[in-house]
Amino acid sequence: MSLGEFDLIERYFNRPGRGEGVLLGVGDDAALLELPPGQCLVAATDTLVEGRHFPRGAPPESIGHQCLAVNLSDLAAMGADPAWALLSLCMPEAREDWLERFATGLLGLADRHGVALVGGDTVRGPLVLSVTALGMVPPGEALGRSGARPGDELFVSGWPGESAAGLELLQREPGSVESDPLVRRFLFPEPRLALGRALRGIATAAMDVSDGLLGDLEKLCHASGVSAKLELDRLPVSPPLAARFPPDETERFVLHGGDDYELLFTLPPGAASGAQMRRLAASCGVHRIGSIGDGRGVSCLRGGESVSIARGGYDHFA
Amino acid sequence: MSLGEFDLIERYFNRPGRGEGVLLGVGDDAALLELPPGQCLVAATDTLVEGRHFPRGAPPESIGHQCLAVNLSDLAAMGADPAWALLSLCMPEAREDWLERFATGLLGLADRHGVALVGGDTVRGPLVLSVTALGMVPPGEALGRSGARPGDELFVSGWPGESAAGLELLQREPGSVESDPLVRRFLFPEPRLALGRALRGIATAAMDVSDGLLGDLEKLCHASGVSAKLELDRLPVSPPLAARFPPDETERFVLHGGDDYELLFTLPPGAASGAQMRRLAASCGVHRIGSIGDGRGVSCLRGGESVSIARGGYDHFA
Repeated sequence: MSLGEFDLIERYFNRPGRGEGVLLGVGDDAALLELPPGQCLVAATDTLVEGRHFPRGAPPESIGHQCLAVNLSDLAAMGADPAWALLSLCMPEAREDWLERFATGLLGLADRHGVALVGGDTVRGPLVLSVTALGMVPPGEALGRSGARPGDELFVSGWPGESAAGLELLQREPGSVESDPLVRRFLFPEPRLALGRALRGIATAAMDVSDGLLGDLEKLCHASGVSAKLELDRLPVSPPLAARFPPDETERFVLHGGDDYELLFTLPPGAASGAQMRRLAASCGVHRIGSIGDGRGVSCLRGGESVSIARGGYDHFA
Repeated sequence: MSLGEFDLIERYFNRPGRGEGVLLGVGDDAALLELPPGQCLVAATDTLVEGRHFPRGAPPESIGHQCLAVNLSDLAAMGADPAWALLSLCMPEAREDWLERFATGLLGLADRHGVALVGGDTVRGPLVLSVTALGMVPPGEALGRSGARPGDELFVSGWPGESAAGLELLQREPGSVESDPLVRRFLFPEPRLALGRALRGIATAAMDVSDGLLGDLEKLCHASGVSAKLELDRLPVSPPLAARFPPDETERFVLHGGDDYELLFTLPPGAASGAQMRRLAASCGVHRIGSIGDGRGVSCLRGGESVSIARGGYDHFA
């Protein structure tokens, strides 16, 4: 490496004085952190691999953004406030220009959400990025996957499918510009932290859509021991998605596309009205897409009729 | 993969009911954890890469053990009590026999130290293992690297160098049996958690030896703004190491070998006597190897004379 591990951490990742509750950050054997009294700790870890989660040659800013975003999205799905992150950066070589751009993407997102990078590890090897995000939530207010009950209404935030469509555009036309809204959605997805916080104490269950709406809904139903009816006519299709792809393809993206980091959640009957709901919708749009019932499994309805949809999440690299 | 991610996590890593303070463990978007009141959170993350930190074809039990041990060692160096761990497992294929043996190594070490695996991620890719260990320490009692003061005495625990010698034996004679004490030390190093706890409130500085005693001592001195005299005649050489290698090679292993997870620490003058010290020594042996002074840098003494030692950590894969 042109930069030693020590210099590399110092130059790009050590920003002393950042972050509340950080008694000891980057540079010692471990980080020492102070959780405010009366809060539960929330911890998530997710890993991105070059050639699998992002294409070879992806912009380093995007890789830095994504590896934190995927973890902040898990915290959003719990209704948590993010606080700290640790980064394991495995890379073939330490190129300063790459690192600077990677750090810009990672720390830019971290700063926008008040997250302090408090530790990590840099090793030489294939490009694999693993982040652990730590946050907090008041006891009893965390959102889980297992609380959906028959009669609940089913919602998804924002515009699922845009990210998968953006990746497909990038693969079809490698020169696709980052200014394309779908490509940008793939490169810089925004974790729904504000919505997650707003759902505390209201939603009965929540999870982030990372493997595709349909497959993730099945997981939510399994965890809650319920069934769901998904109304295909109600699936939100964003204007850029509708403009670029025919309807059968847009539905495939919405149902099976991952990595939008939208939230899938359930609300008790009647909760989805009034001021509370308008507040939720203000952040990123909230769409009612179905309902929860007794029994097991997910059935898809079109025009009120049950239809069969091929299962299997959308595979980025099939 | 022969096993889906969901089945894989369920079968090998989901053990409900394990671990204190685990409100929600493996299986949701994030883990929900309860830190006892009045404790600080300690967090460390470290990554192991096949072919770099362990040889291709290493026993899966050893890989599972090592990827947790390297992180528990960071917690030991802080004087922390470990509590929880998250695992990112990136692997080329999900072979059930490999996974079962990997889980045996990882969870065996976890159980011995009361650590609950509370979350993680499995992805397909090159074999790269990243663990985040979370633990706790009473406020003000954490051990850092920066507290060494002139006049302090310098110590190392146990038998540094054994692990590097064990790896060299494995590489020289690939058929080396795991029962060889040096090989075993490389495959299954024990984090010094009991010693770390015992050093709380006594040691002025501590760190774990992961990149070699000499290089790590330089880091401790740098962080504390002090110098150190290292007395080479006092370096502990374990009987198995002395029996297998000539003296110049044993010294190279002791000074530059990493991954023993011994603790390097400093005590105020006079603290190293009496019952307290006997308790420390009881767990794994404790050796005084030098002293801390004013100024900067590390000087090595042999027979009271200053000698020059080539710098540069022992590189496993040079």
